[in-house]
Amino acid sequence: MKQDKLEKKRQPRLEKVAGNGLLSRRHLLELGLGGAGMAMSQAVMGQDAELKLEIPGWSKTPGPGPSAYGSASSHVGLERQSGFGNPLYPGGGASRSPLQHLQGTITPNSLHFERHHAGVPDIDPAGHKLVINGLVRQPLVFDYEDLLKYTMVSRIYFLECSGNSGALLYGGNPDGTAQSLHGLVSCAEWTGIPISTLLEEAGVLPEARWIAAVGADAASMGRSVPLNKAMDDSMLALFQNGEPVRPEQGYPMRLFNPGWEGNTSVKWLTQIKVTREPAQFRDETSKYTDTMPDRKSLQFTFPMDVKSLITSPSGQMTVARNGVYRVNGIAWSGSGSIRRVEVSADGGSTWADALIDSQQLDKALTRFSIPWQWDGSPAVLQSRATDSAGNVQPTREAVIAAKGTINRYHNPCIQSWGVSPSGEVTNVYV
Amino acid sequence: MKQDKLEKKRQPRLEKVAGNGLLSRRHLLELGLGGAGMAMSQAVMGQDAELKLEIPGWSKTPGPGPSAYGSASSHVGLERQSGFGNPLYPGGGASRSPLQHLQGTITPNSLHFERHHAGVPDIDPAGHKLVINGLVRQPLVFDYEDLLKYTMVSRIYFLECSGNSGALLYGGNPDGTAQSLHGLVSCAEWTGIPISTLLEEAGVLPEARWIAAVGADAASMGRSVPLNKAMDDSMLALFQNGEPVRPEQGYPMRLFNPGWEGNTSVKWLTQIKVTREPAQFRDETSKYTDTMPDRKSLQFTFPMDVKSLITSPSGQMTVARNGVYRVNGIAWSGSGSIRRVEVSADGGSTWADALIDSQQLDKALTRFSIPWQWDGSPAVLQSRATDSAGNVQPTREAVIAAKGTINRYHNPCIQSWGVSPSGEVTNVYV
Repeated sequence: MKQDKLEKKRQPRLEKVAGNGLLSRRHLLELGLGGAGMAMSQAVMGQDAELKLEIPGWSKTPGPGPSAYGSASSHVGLERQSGFGNPLYPGGGASRSPLQHLQGTITPNSLHFERHHAGVPDIDPAGHKLVINGLVRQPLVFDYEDLLKYTMVSRIYFLECSGNSGALLYGGNPDGTAQSLHGLVSCAEWTGIPISTLLEEAGVLPEARWIAAVGADAASMGRSVPLNKAMDDSMLALFQNGEPVRPEQGYPMRLFNPGWEGNTSVKWLTQIKVTREPAQFRDETSKYTDTMPDRKSLQFTFPMDVKSLITSPSGQMTVARNGVYRVNGIAWSGSGSIRRVEVSADGGSTWADALIDSQQLDKALTRFSIPWQWDGSPAVLQSRATDSAGNVQPTREAVIAAKGTINRYHNPCIQSWGVSPSGEVTNVYV
Repeated sequence: MKQDKLEKKRQPRLEKVAGNGLLSRRHLLELGLGGAGMAMSQAVMGQDAELKLEIPGWSKTPGPGPSAYGSASSHVGLERQSGFGNPLYPGGGASRSPLQHLQGTITPNSLHFERHHAGVPDIDPAGHKLVINGLVRQPLVFDYEDLLKYTMVSRIYFLECSGNSGALLYGGNPDGTAQSLHGLVSCAEWTGIPISTLLEEAGVLPEARWIAAVGADAASMGRSVPLNKAMDDSMLALFQNGEPVRPEQGYPMRLFNPGWEGNTSVKWLTQIKVTREPAQFRDETSKYTDTMPDRKSLQFTFPMDVKSLITSPSGQMTVARNGVYRVNGIAWSGSGSIRRVEVSADGGSTWADALIDSQQLDKALTRFSIPWQWDGSPAVLQSRATDSAGNVQPTREAVIAAKGTINRYHNPCIQSWGVSPSGEVTNVYV
């Protein structure tokens, strides 16, 4: 078959479904998307092709055998990106997951985002206690080894810092990447004891309405959680993607509130006090409240909103001219599962449905993709998610109109990636 | 409330559902399972309990801040267990996942089991090629960077070596643990390109029936896979739990055949040759065939059977007398999802349904548990899984009756853990 016929074969009737080159998601499942995008980069070889390839050195000599604990290839080098380090705030800060280099929906434990208020305590589980007290029939104290014997459940959940994507609210970070703008979200399989099991053992008194959770870090990070959430699906997480929870995620144990802002999932959990009112901890008064334009602050804005993000192409990437691309990204919601993700290549004028490429689990990251044929003209790529409760991801304009620009928390707004005629992708405000 | 009344409250009407102390799984979701098992280990404290606890050192001083790449707590120390090292077989061997210390269903990448035939090649992806040739309209060669642009799907799948649990067939390893006996099974989210996408781009000729897959390791590990499997759900896996596939799992790319014996998921994949007949590679003639009592060998016995395993309590653990335990473990099937897991505490005379504690995904590990009240008399704990295709996990006796004891592959038999009056748990043959 001649080269021009091959090209034709590889680029069958590409159905356009929205402006500026978005193609039907069905092309993702057909042959030819990759070929269409990469015809120039594929050498076409004869039937004995493999005989002409040079045999690389690593195929000629046995490598090292099995190991006790594996590590990533030295050719990969993915890292979390640390944020502010303030000498007046020892151990404080955050690190962000390299979202633009990850695929699928699970975040490997070593790359899960972090947010610390006094660094990572090195806790010996033999010396760690969990106290349950307050409005209970019987206060209890638990050792780590005892807790391992309890009933556990395993669920895949995202975790997102309420400050994630905050820079978009004030229009900063024009050089931002998916990681630097949105990297305070990750996803893992969490295994732990339902909080309801522990509370029922202590015996919650009728007047109780809240729990006050406190960590064993030097910040004594504390958050109040309504009792009905705690009894519904909160867990004492002991394992993360199969292994014991990592130190920076709260080893030996953390509270985990599915779908809620990350800081309520108190790490290094050492106390649950059952109360009538919220405790008004420092981290729910001076921080983690949403200040409105009239300077009043909304307190206890717990659930994370429906949200999505194109991770490729994204900020600081370059796309080659005249290609067909797999635009892909992640979507999630604190109110359920992802039902739909739409993508626009013309800054929101027209939209097309993306394909869901992964499991669509409740309160978990979900991967989507759509083919996009770029003709070299300026483009603005956006994604918009809808969840199982019917919530639709809002525009930046709508978020600012509703909550102003003082607030830095709970920003689910649509991310716009501009593509210049030279193929440079940047964070843009449109 | 007095202590004896508390004890009564914590041990409500425990419904026995099978012999030797198995309790209804509904007790797992009620209060009191943990309390019932651990009443002696919980200090009962006053309302100001927390004030009496000594504040540990790690709560007094800030710890280190965020890091680029996290690692497990120094108090954890989980490791894979390496098997044979043979000087005449450089780089050959296996390592097993520490199943008895993991929870949930995902295996962290650093602890995923390994099986190598010439060690782990250190592949620079810039120098790695994937060739597709043979019975195709157009042979193709792919670079790593090109493949990253293709359509991908993400799915959570178990992977099991066909030699897993082989020792049970000849009655060896009485001191075996869940890890040493059954640790050649793991589970991850795999993300990659459907093999059908790549084959359709090359254009499969009508007479094709098989693909021959070859790795870039020094063993040139090769396996033949029927074309209909390859076109159905096989993928070129590029990511594992979100990050690039680990070196020992085939970096930069591996074949992945969901539900099939692990060695067919050829690592470091460098060639797919489309053929009319199987290639009869060394690793599907001299090895990875199932030799029957008449010395004939079954070839191409691909799917892994329905199987389950109690991971706690398990070999080399000790249970304390007179407690209520959460018996728990994992179940999986190469033919679908897990529908049911039953547990016996009397060596298979009577059985009770366990509770499923995790997602029940197709061809993925599934976590089960059931409460067990041990009275100190000898016990034999077993689990038996049923999959969505109606397959039921067989006894060891049935496996041996059907396939004899020469064969070392594809053993799904029920594991028996004996519990002695002193509480020692050992691998037993009953």
